[in-house]
Amino acid sequence: MTTTRTVGIVGAGQLARMMAQAAIPLDIRLVLLAVDAQDGAAKVVPDVIVGPPDDPDKIRELAKRSDVLTFDHELVDPDMLAALEAEGHVVYPSSATMALAQNKRRQRAELAAAGLPVPAFRDVDDIDDVLGFAQEHQWPVVVKASRGGYDGRGVWVVADEAEAHQVVTEAQGAGLVLLVEEYLDLDCELAVLVARRPNGELVVWEPVETVQREGVCNELCVPVDADIRLIAEAVGVARMIAQEIEAVGVLAVEFFLSNGHLYINELAPRPHNSGHWTIEGATTSQFEQHLRAVLDLPLGDTSLRAPAIATENLLGPEDGSDPVTRLPAALGMRGAHVHFYGKAVRPGRKLGHVTVLGTDRQEVRYRASLAVHQLMGKGESQ
Amino acid sequence: MTTTRTVGIVGAGQLARMMAQAAIPLDIRLVLLAVDAQDGAAKVVPDVIVGPPDDPDKIRELAKRSDVLTFDHELVDPDMLAALEAEGHVVYPSSATMALAQNKRRQRAELAAAGLPVPAFRDVDDIDDVLGFAQEHQWPVVVKASRGGYDGRGVWVVADEAEAHQVVTEAQGAGLVLLVEEYLDLDCELAVLVARRPNGELVVWEPVETVQREGVCNELCVPVDADIRLIAEAVGVARMIAQEIEAVGVLAVEFFLSNGHLYINELAPRPHNSGHWTIEGATTSQFEQHLRAVLDLPLGDTSLRAPAIATENLLGPEDGSDPVTRLPAALGMRGAHVHFYGKAVRPGRKLGHVTVLGTDRQEVRYRASLAVHQLMGKGESQ
Repeated sequence: MTTTRTVGIVGAGQLARMMAQAAIPLDIRLVLLAVDAQDGAAKVVPDVIVGPPDDPDKIRELAKRSDVLTFDHELVDPDMLAALEAEGHVVYPSSATMALAQNKRRQRAELAAAGLPVPAFRDVDDIDDVLGFAQEHQWPVVVKASRGGYDGRGVWVVADEAEAHQVVTEAQGAGLVLLVEEYLDLDCELAVLVARRPNGELVVWEPVETVQREGVCNELCVPVDADIRLIAEAVGVARMIAQEIEAVGVLAVEFFLSNGHLYINELAPRPHNSGHWTIEGATTSQFEQHLRAVLDLPLGDTSLRAPAIATENLLGPEDGSDPVTRLPAALGMRGAHVHFYGKAVRPGRKLGHVTVLGTDRQEVRYRASLAVHQLMGKGESQ
Repeated sequence: MTTTRTVGIVGAGQLARMMAQAAIPLDIRLVLLAVDAQDGAAKVVPDVIVGPPDDPDKIRELAKRSDVLTFDHELVDPDMLAALEAEGHVVYPSSATMALAQNKRRQRAELAAAGLPVPAFRDVDDIDDVLGFAQEHQWPVVVKASRGGYDGRGVWVVADEAEAHQVVTEAQGAGLVLLVEEYLDLDCELAVLVARRPNGELVVWEPVETVQREGVCNELCVPVDADIRLIAEAVGVARMIAQEIEAVGVLAVEFFLSNGHLYINELAPRPHNSGHWTIEGATTSQFEQHLRAVLDLPLGDTSLRAPAIATENLLGPEDGSDPVTRLPAALGMRGAHVHFYGKAVRPGRKLGHVTVLGTDRQEVRYRASLAVHQLMGKGESQ
């Protein structure tokens, strides 16, 4: 008889890898379903099933070997998950939450119906929906894939009718389901991470400012530098969503701040890029918390460990060189916490991040950024 | 071509397990030599060689698969390590350091010769050495095994001549090499952890008070509640020892404080029980630091993350029950960081620890202790 709890994770990317770190002290065993045995998390976890995330037999095998099934990504068929639930397997986030996370049309519709702040939007069945919407809300507009996009993929800022024709034709030709939203002038973006247990216990971390560059989240910064009332509103909205959809595990809610108003951008029902700062910056990291929540264990304290925290993402350098070779330079930066995801290098690919804790917002941003510069070889003489 | 660095660890206990956690973000690959595939660390590391630590072929295989060889314990033949060094393998701590760590007679002699504060001592070749020493220093005296003891094993407080006869006869009969030391009335015990790189770079953590019960280290507390000048002296001594023996990796130096004087108790050239508080309590943990040091990477910031930190060890309950089953109760304690070592339960065996950070020494001790009580089932109604 074993007392060890087992969590099965669909996917073996950086989120699963950081969950692996968090699982060790709690004696939580992980089993992964990895596309490739060389995936980031598969390299650091002994128990790996190799197979695609949409293979029903593999997912069922994973579920059978686990007390609860959870996810590194959203590329899983909710109907398959519902079937597992019907068979008595515990799946968190649930099939219903996963279905909602994968459907931006439904997300917008349900959040708007609940009276929560979302940008103006419309489902796009044909080009006339975009043109009509632009007439009401003016150009540019934002066309989005309802499913599958992230990090700027699946999102198009469309300036005029000609561009709208082009984008809609191409995207629909590729089989994408689309919606259109108003274009917002952004003051800043922020995210609120919530964790919720099956019994309803709910905790929230300090909101984090997310700085995007070219559609990719590049930097996280705590505390958020914005109107306190809007930040408080964001926390309230995130809590409400978690309760409303009965999320279990970590739920990340991303927000836009625009002209003094708050808008929900997206939901992700799992540990999220915007929460990587919690590994060092909070008493309980999002990864430990997610494992606790899906196993229905008491949730941990989310309080800050420092007055100011910055996390900068590490993207693959343009020259294809591997930042791991430059680890010594980055570790030479006092207090830089370096995290590699164990991925093969490709220019622009997220390979890791660096977190710095301190007392001053600008100073921690500077130091995290400098450490990442070192890893990318930008500090080297030519 | 891989850029990943590989560290081979002889042994797969809790120290290797906690190194495994620290290795993940730095993209450091671990290979373990485990006595059993169910050892604590072997369960969380994919790459494990199974075999005894004194098998030359297994250790050589481990060395060949690693950039550097290091240790979870001291049960390794230093001559075998010297042979590996001669073959060009990198071994940290070195064979010379390991030899010193395994020989308390030599430790005492060399530290005394360097003018460092050690208790009065004498090598014991026969019973007359004990009796003569007791005549000079009065009863009781402390008889110790020169090699192999820890956590109270291999240490006897001897009250009189009759007891001395009995202890020496039995211990020598068991093949142990002995020494005798003066018995000190302890004000408190403390430990200083140092880390040193091959190039001489050296860092020190805040000294930690170690509270023993029945010869077993039960509790750690930072800061040390003792005369500041003695604490500073301890730091100076620990630095000097690390430099003198050219330690590479973490070196723990344990001290006695007795009647206003400082005495060196023991050395351990590796991450140590007295440093477990650094996982949450310091910017860089002893486990990450050890990996950095043996790989000759820049050392990390050792500063405290909170004004007061307590770690309480979790020992196997007398009734043989598994504390892992009581994880929910312990996680219900706000801010309790629970660490399980993945070991089979035996009464009195070290199975894990709990760390709490805060601002008040008594409060963090109380909370850590309460969490451990929960894990041991002491808080349960009968």
